[in-house]
Amino acid sequence: MRAEILSIGTELLLGQITVTNASYLAQQLTTLGIDLYFVSQVGDNLERLSETLRRARDRSDIVIMTGGLGPTEDDLSREAIAAVLEETPTVDRAYEQTLRAFFASRGVEMPEHNIKQAWVLPSVTPLANPFGTAPGWWAERDGKVIVAMPGVPHEMKRMWEEEVVPRLRSRTGAVLFTRILRVAGLGESSVEERIDTLIHATNPTVATYAKRDAVDVRISAKAPTEAEAQALVAATEQQARAILGAHIFGVDADTPQSVALQLLIERHLTLATMESCSGGLLASTLTDVPGSSAAFLGGLVSYATDLKVQWGVPREIVETHGVISVETARAMAQAVRERLGADLGIGITGVAGPTLQENKPAGTVHIAVASAGRISDTSQRFRGAREEIKWRAAITAINLLRLHLLREG
Amino acid sequence: MRAEILSIGTELLLGQITVTNASYLAQQLTTLGIDLYFVSQVGDNLERLSETLRRARDRSDIVIMTGGLGPTEDDLSREAIAAVLEETPTVDRAYEQTLRAFFASRGVEMPEHNIKQAWVLPSVTPLANPFGTAPGWWAERDGKVIVAMPGVPHEMKRMWEEEVVPRLRSRTGAVLFTRILRVAGLGESSVEERIDTLIHATNPTVATYAKRDAVDVRISAKAPTEAEAQALVAATEQQARAILGAHIFGVDADTPQSVALQLLIERHLTLATMESCSGGLLASTLTDVPGSSAAFLGGLVSYATDLKVQWGVPREIVETHGVISVETARAMAQAVRERLGADLGIGITGVAGPTLQENKPAGTVHIAVASAGRISDTSQRFRGAREEIKWRAAITAINLLRLHLLREG
Repeated sequence: MRAEILSIGTELLLGQITVTNASYLAQQLTTLGIDLYFVSQVGDNLERLSETLRRARDRSDIVIMTGGLGPTEDDLSREAIAAVLEETPTVDRAYEQTLRAFFASRGVEMPEHNIKQAWVLPSVTPLANPFGTAPGWWAERDGKVIVAMPGVPHEMKRMWEEEVVPRLRSRTGAVLFTRILRVAGLGESSVEERIDTLIHATNPTVATYAKRDAVDVRISAKAPTEAEAQALVAATEQQARAILGAHIFGVDADTPQSVALQLLIERHLTLATMESCSGGLLASTLTDVPGSSAAFLGGLVSYATDLKVQWGVPREIVETHGVISVETARAMAQAVRERLGADLGIGITGVAGPTLQENKPAGTVHIAVASAGRISDTSQRFRGAREEIKWRAAITAINLLRLHLLREG
Repeated sequence: MRAEILSIGTELLLGQITVTNASYLAQQLTTLGIDLYFVSQVGDNLERLSETLRRARDRSDIVIMTGGLGPTEDDLSREAIAAVLEETPTVDRAYEQTLRAFFASRGVEMPEHNIKQAWVLPSVTPLANPFGTAPGWWAERDGKVIVAMPGVPHEMKRMWEEEVVPRLRSRTGAVLFTRILRVAGLGESSVEERIDTLIHATNPTVATYAKRDAVDVRISAKAPTEAEAQALVAATEQQARAILGAHIFGVDADTPQSVALQLLIERHLTLATMESCSGGLLASTLTDVPGSSAAFLGGLVSYATDLKVQWGVPREIVETHGVISVETARAMAQAVRERLGADLGIGITGVAGPTLQENKPAGTVHIAVASAGRISDTSQRFRGAREEIKWRAAITAINLLRLHLLREG
């Protein structure tokens, strides 16, 4: 089965947005065992969009569109699909009522041009979008499918996972089973070198991907049944685990923060944080996890040095070793643990950049995790811009927390 | 003049690489006033690549290719250009010697398949690549141009700037000038409705884009000189400002946080935050701005209710109105302001979800900004997943801070 991706929007052609939806969908299609031959971006122009869509539908079995489903005149995906299929839109009265109710609940009248979000065509099944007002379209005719989804990434991803993937699975014959092993504390090329022998196999295929929060090892097997595909994957997973050990922190949708919080919650432990250079990003990343309040009590963002002392870091440590020192990080972890009455404390101090601090270069970061009677720490030099350094600091702290907990057994 | 971008490489279709070259080139073309109508990614397959290139050359004046210039059998850009132009490659003997010398200098013999990096066609002018072994191609015939550049970003950018841009400039007459007005506190369709009359103009063109942190109004004008293009944009900007007023918080690369911090720094004011449902994201967003330490003292993430009281929120307010209340948000803003000795304090309390809290639904958020003797507040109901609610809370707080400061004059 051949697929093709069209990303819609003039902003893509102005380079104001990087085409991350297309990358996400490309990876997803690989996982589903669907071949992707073409990816295009096209602007908000009905003629060019229709031309591109018509050619895509001629040469591919599935055309996946993102964007162009908003309510404005620039949003032309529905119009283009109607033109290519030569079908006439009608208004779905039930969805029109839903739309009007949505606007009424916000105390405003629905602008009349929003009505086109309630359009359907004879070949179209609408796809639910609980995160926005634009439903997607599954347009199927003559054995070919056009899928239209919103361009807003979180709306698109939810629709893809819940609405599109199940429909696609029922069209592909072989079953593909994929497991992702999530790896912390090693770079992608280092992971690749260690599992080199696995990477050259064909079923399962094994590939590495550098993600923002970890390196993924994706193991995918195709087989006539799910059980057979799973068995193939399980054997390779065992080999990978023997090589990568505790660097593997989780699987599939696990994140460093979800795994660390899970460990805390299982052990009935509580956590508090004191951060300076990461500026609250550690606390924010931890609280991205639903249910994090069961373990995370709170955090201090001690941007001004005086606040660190006010919050319990001994002044002589700061004066002797400097604010940017592993000693200060350790004192921060201990101080916040005691101050907030938590079982564990994390301290982060460093230079987010772009300028030097205490003559230490941007990217210098010290991190400590303290529990009763024990402290783990790490000192790093991260590369990149300010936001990247903050992010590396937060994610490294979360990994240090996990390793600290594992060592306590 | 119409341009089209082709990014070559199967890895692009596997989603392993985000197409950053295309975004960069799209921005560059905008600046040069060259219209970009299509962007595509195509795999390392001669038939599909030639088909795509032929169609691109038919409908556009300039086709810009990146990738496919390496020495391996998978690198097929030269072969595709030769096929489309129906010209036969010959080896440029001088460049062949350069290549052989390059390998000799590294103590290895040149692999014979590398010879194709010395190919030329009758219509081709090679483009120098000091950062790699693959020269680019400028293939010009019948008034149409194909530019082929390496896919490695730093090789491509150097070749683009030094070799391609000067050649393109000599072909274009007009200059394009663009200004982006950044808008807070209004949705995209509401912005579009208000500036409806401007959107239907043709020079300048005006378009709206929903970004994660704001709505952008992009005004672009073409003229024979930069000064004339700027004057056209300035007239439209004035009209847009008359309509959108204080909703416009900045221009071009401004962010809500950079603008709010700039206001604080200009007025020599300091800021502290106390957040619960946003979990540190407000502090983190503020500290993304380089130099934020000049105004931002620090923040408290009071995830546990007890911490709010410990940090100065009167217990009777929490007990009377609930943790999720505008009264608690106001008390948080005042308490953190006093506790950290800052000129201004921000308080955020709400339900990040997915579960109810105090019987209030996910997305309920109360925000307050306090300065000496004055408090501003807002109560909102945000939609979306947990991370989206946290983000809307943080960005709404930053906008409330800006409006609070503007009202103080």
